[in-house]
Amino acid sequence: MVRNLTDAVMGRRPYDRIIKNVRIVNVFTEEIIPGNIGIADGMIACAGDLGEGAEALETVDGKGRFAVPGFIDSHMHLESSMMTPAHFAEAVVPMGTVAVAADPHEIANVMGKRGVEILCEMTRDLPLHVSIMAPSTVPSAPGFETAGASLGAEDVREMLSYDGVLGLGEVMDFNGVVDSDEKMTAIIDEAQKTGCLMDGHVPLLKGRSLQAFVSAGLDCDHTYMDADSVAEKLRCGMWVQIQERYFTPELMAYLNDSPAQGRILLATDDVPISRLAEHGHVDHLVRKAISMGLKPMNAYRYVTINAADRLRMYRSGAVAPGKWADILLLDSLEQADVSAVFCKGVLTAENGKMTVPVPEKPFPADACATMSIEPLAPEDFRLKADGSRALVQVIVQDGKTAKTSPRKAWCAVAGGCVEREGVWADGDKVPCSLVKMAVFNRYPDNDRRSIGFLGNLDQFRGAIATTYAHDCHNLTVYGSSDEDMAAAANLVIRSGGGVAAVKDGRVLAHIALPIAGLLCEDRMEVLAKKFENLTRAAEEMKLNHEEVLSFITLMALAVSPEIKLTDLGLVDVVHKCFVPCVEKTEE
Amino acid sequence: MVRNLTDAVMGRRPYDRIIKNVRIVNVFTEEIIPGNIGIADGMIACAGDLGEGAEALETVDGKGRFAVPGFIDSHMHLESSMMTPAHFAEAVVPMGTVAVAADPHEIANVMGKRGVEILCEMTRDLPLHVSIMAPSTVPSAPGFETAGASLGAEDVREMLSYDGVLGLGEVMDFNGVVDSDEKMTAIIDEAQKTGCLMDGHVPLLKGRSLQAFVSAGLDCDHTYMDADSVAEKLRCGMWVQIQERYFTPELMAYLNDSPAQGRILLATDDVPISRLAEHGHVDHLVRKAISMGLKPMNAYRYVTINAADRLRMYRSGAVAPGKWADILLLDSLEQADVSAVFCKGVLTAENGKMTVPVPEKPFPADACATMSIEPLAPEDFRLKADGSRALVQVIVQDGKTAKTSPRKAWCAVAGGCVEREGVWADGDKVPCSLVKMAVFNRYPDNDRRSIGFLGNLDQFRGAIATTYAHDCHNLTVYGSSDEDMAAAANLVIRSGGGVAAVKDGRVLAHIALPIAGLLCEDRMEVLAKKFENLTRAAEEMKLNHEEVLSFITLMALAVSPEIKLTDLGLVDVVHKCFVPCVEKTEE
Repeated sequence: MVRNLTDAVMGRRPYDRIIKNVRIVNVFTEEIIPGNIGIADGMIACAGDLGEGAEALETVDGKGRFAVPGFIDSHMHLESSMMTPAHFAEAVVPMGTVAVAADPHEIANVMGKRGVEILCEMTRDLPLHVSIMAPSTVPSAPGFETAGASLGAEDVREMLSYDGVLGLGEVMDFNGVVDSDEKMTAIIDEAQKTGCLMDGHVPLLKGRSLQAFVSAGLDCDHTYMDADSVAEKLRCGMWVQIQERYFTPELMAYLNDSPAQGRILLATDDVPISRLAEHGHVDHLVRKAISMGLKPMNAYRYVTINAADRLRMYRSGAVAPGKWADILLLDSLEQADVSAVFCKGVLTAENGKMTVPVPEKPFPADACATMSIEPLAPEDFRLKADGSRALVQVIVQDGKTAKTSPRKAWCAVAGGCVEREGVWADGDKVPCSLVKMAVFNRYPDNDRRSIGFLGNLDQFRGAIATTYAHDCHNLTVYGSSDEDMAAAANLVIRSGGGVAAVKDGRVLAHIALPIAGLLCEDRMEVLAKKFENLTRAAEEMKLNHEEVLSFITLMALAVSPEIKLTDLGLVDVVHKCFVPCVEKTEE
Repeated sequence: MVRNLTDAVMGRRPYDRIIKNVRIVNVFTEEIIPGNIGIADGMIACAGDLGEGAEALETVDGKGRFAVPGFIDSHMHLESSMMTPAHFAEAVVPMGTVAVAADPHEIANVMGKRGVEILCEMTRDLPLHVSIMAPSTVPSAPGFETAGASLGAEDVREMLSYDGVLGLGEVMDFNGVVDSDEKMTAIIDEAQKTGCLMDGHVPLLKGRSLQAFVSAGLDCDHTYMDADSVAEKLRCGMWVQIQERYFTPELMAYLNDSPAQGRILLATDDVPISRLAEHGHVDHLVRKAISMGLKPMNAYRYVTINAADRLRMYRSGAVAPGKWADILLLDSLEQADVSAVFCKGVLTAENGKMTVPVPEKPFPADACATMSIEPLAPEDFRLKADGSRALVQVIVQDGKTAKTSPRKAWCAVAGGCVEREGVWADGDKVPCSLVKMAVFNRYPDNDRRSIGFLGNLDQFRGAIATTYAHDCHNLTVYGSSDEDMAAAANLVIRSGGGVAAVKDGRVLAHIALPIAGLLCEDRMEVLAKKFENLTRAAEEMKLNHEEVLSFITLMALAVSPEIKLTDLGLVDVVHKCFVPCVEKTEE
């Protein structure tokens, strides 16, 4: 009731709470104003001078700290934390994140609309405000992979009606939009009817192709950004969401000078658990951006009022009257060292810990039964071929990113199966020791599977299996031994999904992800430790990649270049076609 | 269909229209980019470089002119033009105004919700996009005047559901909000439930009172603005709408430097027909603001993208892909000399004239039958009193504004009626020749009427009657002769509302306003001439006020200081009480 606020401001009733003695950061006028904040009904009723003798049921001493608006992450995926929404909230609220727009693209690939419905339900009533974006591109590469669902225009219409859904999630099939693909345009037409927010995803798109994409109403992007692409996207009227990976001093200098201040945002997209635990969440973006030269006031605007404007959260994003009392206290704007978090006026976290319990509820049973796959045997990992040697197409990973390149090798064939030892088939014919990769569809009524070879992993020994494998999240196994591959796969199958590392029959690491094969009930510290363990296991197995998690989750992603393996086979992503794993054999 | 746009951009089908050879003003990046604009389905598909050989069904040569987004007026009242919405559109679209947010406060005072419903209907399908704001404060001074309706929270809820209604119109009873008045807070609570836009009206409100008002979610104001009040309102998170009357070089300099660029707007509020015809509409605001030092790019932003942001018109306000093709061509940014107007991609006006017909439809019959009042006789204008002289309370108008002050006079009483000749009752006792003012309720089942005296009009001879009289729009008559007053009043009654000037039985001016007693079917040029005629009549009658229309329409406005006459009597606006017109009589 509005009178609870007006009465409090005018002294006719006490505030519910006063946060006194703070330096209020005004994201509108860029002022820092010493004063107090009066709160009623979870909202800021008055900020600054509350007048003589203002009373409150409770008064908190801000001790001269800065009071900034709670951080809003305008584009992210909850699943990348591998935690439940409740535990994710418990992790990030103490870091200052009070609201997120989450695109449940991963669980939608596993469970379709039902997954989105479940995430809507599981994110309700959290201290973290979660807006759900309806996944628009499931699967990401139709025809080249099989997910647990395929969502079309009718599904999008239905999802947009769910309570908690704000708009259309990132349209990743930018070529489909530019090419007026039937499915994509039908989905966008459906979303346009509702007037909802629509997010884009346009790495490297430029010029007319970019304008074609934006003409569809997809006016936001969080992919590759340098000063030129930011300028071009702003010019098109887009909102730009800058991820940490694109931060450079040059970009920060550009942002500081841009006249389009209101449409610049910082967003996290995917933050793996280890980085979340080590560096933080939106607070980390703020710190890092400032350290690279972004003006502190800009950094705070980009993750508060600008994000609120983008997400149409008209009562959020500022320490000002009539806004939700989502307020952070910190000692240093540069350090973004959040020491107290008020959500809707209640002290919710202090010194990195929640001060209120996060309501927990179990995921529904169907979310925990998504492994529709029988136990596997070493034989399931054999790549059959005739003759005595085979020319195989190899996925060469670069040891750093998700990018791969194709290369061919001649491998021996023994007992009707291709062996992993061979020689590169191009000029120099040096020997290579390949690693197998296998993808098993894990959804009902589908037993598609494929086997391929990975290069630049010659020293790797053992096997890693995962159900967290973008974007279809099929059971994906990497290994030097069919026995270890089967063992790792079966451990993951038994745990309803997850990640397992096995070497010489010994389990080196195991992370059960029983919820949709993506999430678990572990809290951040526990789960982060499990991933540390996985990293150690990868070292022990001599996995040649800087980020084990990136590696195992991205080699099946058939929308990132150049060559990937899905349940349907080896995909030449650049030329959009399948290529045979065994090109030919010789007697 | 989105594919019509993407296909056009990628050259797979021709654009509906290309506007070639323009200098595109980018309100995001503040760039001016030479190029072409490709339009499909009424939207901008591509702006800038359309590529070699782009084809279109029609090509318009912009001849190097600037292409700016159509102007959006974020706060105005259609009724102040006294034209029908169709004729208003016909007048302002050629000036570059393509969208307005209209608060039908006047017709709501006459006809209640039905008036709002009618305006929603009459503004549909115009070339001008009209968003309706549900009037929040009808009547403006409850208890001190009687309008044709009194709208409460239930009514507001209903109006917010009308097709075309965007939000809650300016909450004028700011004291009611700050004081947590029951009716006002119930109305705001009702609007808050819908999450709609809510406009404020806070002249002179400051400090805690202002914060109390804004805490109610009323985050926009268009009233008094100087640099200090703009700063304070922006600090509170408000959007500020600057009217022409508050333009000063100092304010423009402040606006240029404000960090809160995104929340500054220019808006017209009320533009009387004579000013509209002579100076223009939003184009005039732009010209005048620039002439006073506002940076041209800021001026254009304030009436395009910022207004679109405020009004949540996500597909408007910029010449950029995915936005409605509401585009103006002009030769000079400083002159805002709009020579062509495209609405949704169609050339709609050129060189000050519409190039497409504006669909017209008659107002419903009930809108043309709002004069529920019998013909009047000279006797109806007599102020009765006993004795031989009476001490009367006089409304002294200042000859310039709507402001009045109280003063007392002793007048002779003859034949049981107070005469207009008298002497001021304060110290010097100089003679005065008063003018009568009478207000007759014109709504069904109500025959309330009151008579008072006006000072500082000693030379005035004749009578003027009007039904356009803020905010209740009762029949209001000013005159030096009861006979002329009755004649003017009867002429207005016979014409179903309007304005009439009569001197010595001769009609000097007559403007019929048969639609709700507020509007007529005249086009701008015709109606403006009629008002010129009224101005000449006022001169002939020696009416001592700079703006005849302001004078006749504002003397009954019981929310502006200091003393006004309504159908219920003489109102001391400052002390919020009635005062008797005849204080005492003497034998």
